[in-house]
Amino acid sequence: MRADGRAVDQLREITITRGWSKQAEGSALIEFGNTKVLCTASFTEGVPRWLKGQGAGWVTAEYAMLPRATNTRNGRESVKGKIGGRTHEISRLIGRSLRAVIDTKALGENTIVLDCDVLQADGGTRTAAITGAYIALAEAIEWARENKLVRKNATVLTDSVAAISVGIIDGTPMLDLPYEEDVRAETDMNVVVTGAGDFVEVQGTAEGAAFNRAELDSLLDLALLGTTELGSIQRATLGQDA
Amino acid sequence: MRADGRAVDQLREITITRGWSKQAEGSALIEFGNTKVLCTASFTEGVPRWLKGQGAGWVTAEYAMLPRATNTRNGRESVKGKIGGRTHEISRLIGRSLRAVIDTKALGENTIVLDCDVLQADGGTRTAAITGAYIALAEAIEWARENKLVRKNATVLTDSVAAISVGIIDGTPMLDLPYEEDVRAETDMNVVVTGAGDFVEVQGTAEGAAFNRAELDSLLDLALLGTTELGSIQRATLGQDA
Amino acid sequence: MRADGRAVDQLREITITRGWSKQAEGSALIEFGNTKVLCTASFTEGVPRWLKGQGAGWVTAEYAMLPRATNTRNGRESVKGKIGGRTHEISRLIGRSLRAVIDTKALGENTIVLDCDVLQADGGTRTAAITGAYIALAEAIEWARENKLVRKNATVLTDSVAAISVGIIDGTPMLDLPYEEDVRAETDMNVVVTGAGDFVEVQGTAEGAAFNRAELDSLLDLALLGTTELGSIQRATLGQDA
Amino acid sequence: MRADGRAVDQLREITITRGWSKQAEGSALIEFGNTKVLCTASFTEGVPRWLKGQGAGWVTAEYAMLPRATNTRNGRESVKGKIGGRTHEISRLIGRSLRAVIDTKALGENTIVLDCDVLQADGGTRTAAITGAYIALAEAIEWARENKLVRKNATVLTDSVAAISVGIIDGTPMLDLPYEEDVRAETDMNVVVTGAGDFVEVQGTAEGAAFNRAELDSLLDLALLGTTELGSIQRATLGQDA
Amino acid sequence: MRADGRAVDQLREITITRGWSKQAEGSALIEFGNTKVLCTASFTEGVPRWLKGQGAGWVTAEYAMLPRATNTRNGRESVKGKIGGRTHEISRLIGRSLRAVIDTKALGENTIVLDCDVLQADGGTRTAAITGAYIALAEAIEWARENKLVRKNATVLTDSVAAISVGIIDGTPMLDLPYEEDVRAETDMNVVVTGAGDFVEVQGTAEGAAFNRAELDSLLDLALLGTTELGSIQRATLGQDA
Amino acid sequence: MRADGRAVDQLREITITRGWSKQAEGSALIEFGNTKVLCTASFTEGVPRWLKGQGAGWVTAEYAMLPRATNTRNGRESVKGKIGGRTHEISRLIGRSLRAVIDTKALGENTIVLDCDVLQADGGTRTAAITGAYIALAEAIEWARENKLVRKNATVLTDSVAAISVGIIDGTPMLDLPYEEDVRAETDMNVVVTGAGDFVEVQGTAEGAAFNRAELDSLLDLALLGTTELGSIQRATLGQDA
Repeated sequence: MRADGRAVDQLREITITRGWSKQAEGSALIEFGNTKVLCTASFTEGVPRWLKGQGAGWVTAEYAMLPRATNTRNGRESVKGKIGGRTHEISRLIGRSLRAVIDTKALGENTIVLDCDVLQADGGTRTAAITGAYIALAEAIEWARENKLVRKNATVLTDSVAAISVGIIDGTPMLDLPYEEDVRAETDMNVVVTGAGDFVEVQGTAEGAAFNRAELDSLLDLALLGTTELGSIQRATLGQDA
Repeated sequence: MRADGRAVDQLREITITRGWSKQAEGSALIEFGNTKVLCTASFTEGVPRWLKGQGAGWVTAEYAMLPRATNTRNGRESVKGKIGGRTHEISRLIGRSLRAVIDTKALGENTIVLDCDVLQADGGTRTAAITGAYIALAEAIEWARENKLVRKNATVLTDSVAAISVGIIDGTPMLDLPYEEDVRAETDMNVVVTGAGDFVEVQGTAEGAAFNRAELDSLLDLALLGTTELGSIQRATLGQDA
Repeated sequence: MRADGRAVDQLREITITRGWSKQAEGSALIEFGNTKVLCTASFTEGVPRWLKGQGAGWVTAEYAMLPRATNTRNGRESVKGKIGGRTHEISRLIGRSLRAVIDTKALGENTIVLDCDVLQADGGTRTAAITGAYIALAEAIEWARENKLVRKNATVLTDSVAAISVGIIDGTPMLDLPYEEDVRAETDMNVVVTGAGDFVEVQGTAEGAAFNRAELDSLLDLALLGTTELGSIQRATLGQDA
Repeated sequence: MRADGRAVDQLREITITRGWSKQAEGSALIEFGNTKVLCTASFTEGVPRWLKGQGAGWVTAEYAMLPRATNTRNGRESVKGKIGGRTHEISRLIGRSLRAVIDTKALGENTIVLDCDVLQADGGTRTAAITGAYIALAEAIEWARENKLVRKNATVLTDSVAAISVGIIDGTPMLDLPYEEDVRAETDMNVVVTGAGDFVEVQGTAEGAAFNRAELDSLLDLALLGTTELGSIQRATLGQDA
Repeated sequence: MRADGRAVDQLREITITRGWSKQAEGSALIEFGNTKVLCTASFTEGVPRWLKGQGAGWVTAEYAMLPRATNTRNGRESVKGKIGGRTHEISRLIGRSLRAVIDTKALGENTIVLDCDVLQADGGTRTAAITGAYIALAEAIEWARENKLVRKNATVLTDSVAAISVGIIDGTPMLDLPYEEDVRAETDMNVVVTGAGDFVEVQGTAEGAAFNRAELDSLLDLALLGTTELGSIQRATLGQDA
Repeated sequence: MRADGRAVDQLREITITRGWSKQAEGSALIEFGNTKVLCTASFTEGVPRWLKGQGAGWVTAEYAMLPRATNTRNGRESVKGKIGGRTHEISRLIGRSLRAVIDTKALGENTIVLDCDVLQADGGTRTAAITGAYIALAEAIEWARENKLVRKNATVLTDSVAAISVGIIDGTPMLDLPYEEDVRAETDMNVVVTGAGDFVEVQGTAEGAAFNRAELDSLLDLALLGTTELGSIQRATLGQDA
């Protein structure tokens, strides 16, 4: 039994508020338990210089945390004058994950920037960010379609994408770790999966002891279980058929 | 008649959600119409090196905007590697405003950092930030009192403080400008006022034509009207006697 | 009676040396007592990218202090690798103040950069900078006229502009504060006024106790007295009719 | 058949030159085909401030590439004034990988910094860096033992660690990708494995299409094959019994 | 005959204004023709951490140019966020030059920072800076002696130091080059010489053709002539016996 | 007799490995005793913006040290976020030295960047860098000729260039100082000389006592001896007639 009463293969309460922002072309406030991430999608015509004239679009992401999202305050990266390694790494992960379900040719020479700002952090912020950014991305593409910035029938999104963390705590594989569990995990894995159930990213790290093949397999099983459920929630949020 | 139907001396709808954050010692999500600012107060024991051993505390503030708080996306200051002039200026203003109602000796050698992050911007973000930061500050001081980090009977907060913007649009002085009015204002003024009705800051700027003494007086009248009302809302939020 | 023997409504000795620089299109070394600021105006054809093709010019300013302008040495901002909040704030104030008396259409697509470098600091550096920058600006516009870079009859400067500090020390409002008085002031106000006597900027800050409406009015009276006198000195410096 | 004539499950020629540096406490020049990485280990007494007094040591890593290690020149990060996301990410990966085989208590309050500088890049630089850094680390610990900076019988290194890249090219899983294959890979995976055959890190990324569970399994099989062989080479290099 | 009418072995008009600054412990405004450099010396008790407890002091220098010291405006290094190579190089040169005439043991554990800010530039700014910084340094040491911060009879300054530029223009070696000559010089040399006539620094650079031994000798002869004269001016400025 | 058994006018063992890099257009690993510098030349078509349309090329250089090239580890400049004064100064010196033997018109509108990375440091790194960069530069020009990027008969290199350090230790002038001697030198000089025996740069610095004309002459004699020998080694390396 886990501290918050969940079963080992149970997600925290997941809430997605679509269209949270009145300003962005797409947005979602996503909550994995006490973790809250505001995801916005900014659609602009044109692409970065290195991509011009190739008929393809660009999707990128930036992740950040408010200084007091966490239990003790962290100095702002803007004040430090540079972005830390963790921020860089997660921003790159989110961008890759979303690009995996985008047909950049169908997007045309347009750019979508996904901003994922963690308002409150309690573990799993990167996986919540990916899952929520997909909703903001879908909204922005819909917006672009309505504003005739992408072709009416173009399939810009080739699939959905969601992510979840799994880990081994005291020898037991568990799904969707809050901060309290995350710091105790011997192995920590973030898995990004498409709606079709294929892997986009598998990032497993031994925090304490190294893990064996059987443990890896159990973690992947749990992760697929979680992302399947997240996919259902995403479809419901977007009003799509299950 | 204004675009949003308000009278010239009428505030937008003001909403303050106390204790928005589960992590911070004090917090408030404040809304002035569509402007939404998340204010947190982080209380830590100890003071910066230059203040050590003097028996006095320190209160400071940092203001920032999420990249897509505004209608078009602004690059992150963390990515640019430096903080812009406007951010610096507003952070300093918030810090000075809150220090005006703090008895630093009563606070003791403790530090409170106020983080004001604009989640959505529609004019008046700095005045909303000051008004909301006061609530977060009051909560943090209450928290410190309960945790015996400040003396039980010490009057750390000597008064309340609130702020509002006023401006002249098409020759007419108006209260609490949304973005749409702000960009059209000939004169723009931000006024910070204590609960007792005294001025902490008066910052008036001629955006177009210079303004005369009579216009200045009208703007100050409006500002005092607005801050009096904000003071009532603050007291109600904190459950204090009107 | 003040420490330097002045009356409360008396300016320090004001000296303006026109054309101090052999290199710049306009320049002035301005002294408010022991405060010395070197102001240069650099005129270049063309405007920043965001202003191109609109037929209007641009005026901007940068303020800085030599490291040993003050009584103890301050590290250089170039060495720190970033500009401090105070520098940013004052640079922006100077730019806004000068733009208030510029007809950018009459200036045409040209840029004037005003550099205000404090060689020696004894209070009031930002107000001296604004007052001196106006002289450098006037010289640069005259230079441009002679070099046929602005039209002969265009009224580029619509008025003059000057600035002064006022403050309340031991309950008494005083004009033009040197450093010694500035640090003791309960309220500190910088006021920027056109030659016609209208306000461009009013920036009042309670350093200690908040100030009331009557005190604000006294300070504004003193400031208008001071800027009127500075306007006369500016006209004399430029050889204009009083 | 691969462009360089290797079988799909064959490593490139691996060369490890121990003790390349006369200056460092441990060093190795490692070559995976044309990829050359200089790894040095710097041993210093003491630990970072946040770790003091806990009786444990610290191991960290920094990865970088010479500007012309690659086929076209990349600007230096020192000149850009900041470290890119990729550099940060790989530095963190190397540090985590080596810490997985260190008993920090046995190391005592000492710090080892591993510098992995890519002199020539042809794919697999991060995996070569991890594999080479292990040799430099082992040398530095031996050096410390000889210099009585760690206890004679302490088992500071609990195991060896090596890493290899695997990927799917044209549907075929392959081991140890040179640059030419890396850019064509649909899926790219870096796997860090201990001498005992357990996983320290598994990082798989779909570059093109997402990958399924069967593909993931084949890649892991190949990776274990490769790291087993690297482990033998490491033991031979260090003169240990196979 | 040179453009400004001087003989090839003649200095420009040299002016040194002692005690220019009311704030610094030592200061001099030095002019080599139209080149004007403000030199201040800041004396503080204590030394940098790496020098503590050794009974020796520290002298260092920082050189900078106002943005409009030159004929066209150069962006500020503080705004760029970093110091350029030329600034670094000259700052280091000034520091080394002054340290050559300081007995750091006699100085005791005190630090003197020399700030050399170019107010107007017309060639030879680094040599003027060294020559003027010596005066500021001498004043600061005198100030320290009067304030009993160095021992009364300690010989802190072991000699004087001055610097001059020489160069070959159209095949002719010339002394003290203004900007106009400097840009045309085939060879450019800066020479720093003690009052005793020994070399502290010799920095010769072929701008166009390489130079031979005979040319080098002529340049050194000229430089010694110039620095001898500068030494006389320095002694006169300080009221010392010739 | 010197610590390493050399005569005062004897070079350390000099080794130059041409074509060390498979990636660069030109490269050399140069060794002056234990000092090892990897020099690469990157040839690209086009020139920086400020040089466009003038029919001339550009040669520039960047110098850096690996963090553990030295006996104790130095933090990376990329991590510090800025380049130090010493790095800047040496990079500029290398660039000037190589440009002295380039006919930029014959090079045409092409750019060559010389990267000199110190892999191991034992004194004389800047002089080794210049001497090795010449080889890399010659290779790159040969490469460009073969690839028809410069005209077949154009004399792009007008001469060779080499550099050596000399210094006075315990009153004795010595050639080619290793680190151990360098730190003890009273005077330290770096001299850059063309194949024809003319000076490109002479940089002499009194580290302790100032030096007189006779000492300067002895140092120059030694330097010319050393660079003559280096020129022979360079010619042999490039397979040119002696």
